[in-house]
Amino acid sequence: MAVPSVSDAIRAFVNDTLPRSHAIPEIHQLYAMMRDYAARGGKMIRSKLLVASALAHGGTFNGALPLAAALEMFQDWVLIHDDIEDESEERRGLPALHRLHGVPLALNAGDALHVYMWQVVFGSRIPGAFEEFLSMIHRTAEGQQIDLGWIAANRWDITESDYLELVQRKTAYYTVVAPLRLGALAAGREPDPRFTQAGLDLGVAFQIRDDWLNLAGDRAVYGKEIGGDLLEGKRTLMLVHLLNSLPDDERLEVTRVLSQLRTSKTEAQMEQIMRLIQEAGSLGYAQAVADHHAQRGLALLEAALSELPGQDAAQEILEVSTALATRSA
Amino acid sequence: MAVPSVSDAIRAFVNDTLPRSHAIPEIHQLYAMMRDYAARGGKMIRSKLLVASALAHGGTFNGALPLAAALEMFQDWVLIHDDIEDESEERRGLPALHRLHGVPLALNAGDALHVYMWQVVFGSRIPGAFEEFLSMIHRTAEGQQIDLGWIAANRWDITESDYLELVQRKTAYYTVVAPLRLGALAAGREPDPRFTQAGLDLGVAFQIRDDWLNLAGDRAVYGKEIGGDLLEGKRTLMLVHLLNSLPDDERLEVTRVLSQLRTSKTEAQMEQIMRLIQEAGSLGYAQAVADHHAQRGLALLEAALSELPGQDAAQEILEVSTALATRSA
Repeated sequence: MAVPSVSDAIRAFVNDTLPRSHAIPEIHQLYAMMRDYAARGGKMIRSKLLVASALAHGGTFNGALPLAAALEMFQDWVLIHDDIEDESEERRGLPALHRLHGVPLALNAGDALHVYMWQVVFGSRIPGAFEEFLSMIHRTAEGQQIDLGWIAANRWDITESDYLELVQRKTAYYTVVAPLRLGALAAGREPDPRFTQAGLDLGVAFQIRDDWLNLAGDRAVYGKEIGGDLLEGKRTLMLVHLLNSLPDDERLEVTRVLSQLRTSKTEAQMEQIMRLIQEAGSLGYAQAVADHHAQRGLALLEAALSELPGQDAAQEILEVSTALATRSA
Repeated sequence: MAVPSVSDAIRAFVNDTLPRSHAIPEIHQLYAMMRDYAARGGKMIRSKLLVASALAHGGTFNGALPLAAALEMFQDWVLIHDDIEDESEERRGLPALHRLHGVPLALNAGDALHVYMWQVVFGSRIPGAFEEFLSMIHRTAEGQQIDLGWIAANRWDITESDYLELVQRKTAYYTVVAPLRLGALAAGREPDPRFTQAGLDLGVAFQIRDDWLNLAGDRAVYGKEIGGDLLEGKRTLMLVHLLNSLPDDERLEVTRVLSQLRTSKTEAQMEQIMRLIQEAGSLGYAQAVADHHAQRGLALLEAALSELPGQDAAQEILEVSTALATRSA
């Protein structure tokens, strides 16, 4: 981004918002837990996008700062709870919060952080920001429910349309749509209605690419465990495409394997599914769907941004969005 | 309370606020989960106290309704998360939400309900109400952290002062202080500063009595499993008093028993601890502490309420508070 210290300023705002120390050791520990994920240093993609959107709309960095910080706090409390829900082991290179402190304390710390997020949104007094956070989190919780519900019910009869409904809610809205809209609001402007469709398309492309890289990426470049999604039984577009391509008996066999506990899955089983994915052309198919959404989203975004006063920032948004939606690592 | 339909009106407000149906079955299920605890019918002590406080301050029932509903929604999402944190089996006579749907879905439903609570508080546009909800939940989360932290660290070196710090935060503030203050705010009045100390005292008395009844109450009247707190190892004033009365070796033995898993505790062990509690005079001691707080709180509350315009409602508040703080069932 153009301003090198954007991340630092957002991080400092979060740091100054959260309470730091308390005479009662348990409360002191709560404060430390609320700060933990932020201190591990996330990529801050969303909050930086929000700031760029504010600048593109003729707003100021300082005017956007509270909402950028609140968006980071949202991300952090949601990750604490997601990690519990998904039984994740790690987050940002360290053990997940509930692995360090147990589920009860981590759950409570997520709730406490959630409340401080609303404090910042409310305190910003930016018209429309509170309502935008409400719809953002409503959608995210609904997306999370779809994902967890499929796992709880062991559902595999998922169409591409089901998958897109999931990803739009769970990831795309808060990753792209909300930052673009909140940036406009921070600048005192009405968000362009085209941001919604553009952001959903770009967010969908981002998620498909992320899943694609997990399955087929270069381990050294991608930085996460390749194939981890298969072990977890995560519903990805590649898997949805494969399952809808297979004859009934083979589909049943693949879902039987995918439904097993992670620890029960063998390397041979994973390699067999990977081979089926390649034979079905699911990687290429998913790539094409991601490209389609990326191109449509970028075109719409470019048109919307071209009318804004801050063209340097608008250019940055396009660059970041292109990188997000077509990332190869 | 004076208005027989107060509970119904609050329940209807919550019912109308939460979304009801959705074409996607998983989201439809999320909505049903958000409504579940409310539909089971709680006692609504806190929200009815809030309404009475508003009327005592010269406000209207309709003016207080959104905050009363939001307070119920607070109670409901906190209970969903508390039940996960405490591994509770039941809530309001039915299985706890995570027993019905698993931890991931229940956790997410609690988060979703939490967001709707803020929507109602924000939408009420009552000056000071948002800030009051913030401080209420900050304190409650801090109290919960103390309680869970003691359990996680297997801490038993708890003084009476530690215990009072816990109960003031975890229970007293949101049970009595916040309803009194929110009622005043709903009526457009500045809350009397005496409500804080009065509410903390009454809330402490309420919690001590609740724990007392769990240990020594009449099973038929109390309606919960007598001695369940001992099995759970819950830190109560009776236990704090006992542990601080025992010589070192006996204290160690009691805490060793209390620290065991619930399923490892024998009836003989529980009876032995109950005998020690009786010998140490811990039941009488706790009763006296509860009475002290109840009397001090009621006197302070009576003085504060005597100056308000709505004396019928003020009288109700005193009756409800007396019943809460000195309840025998």
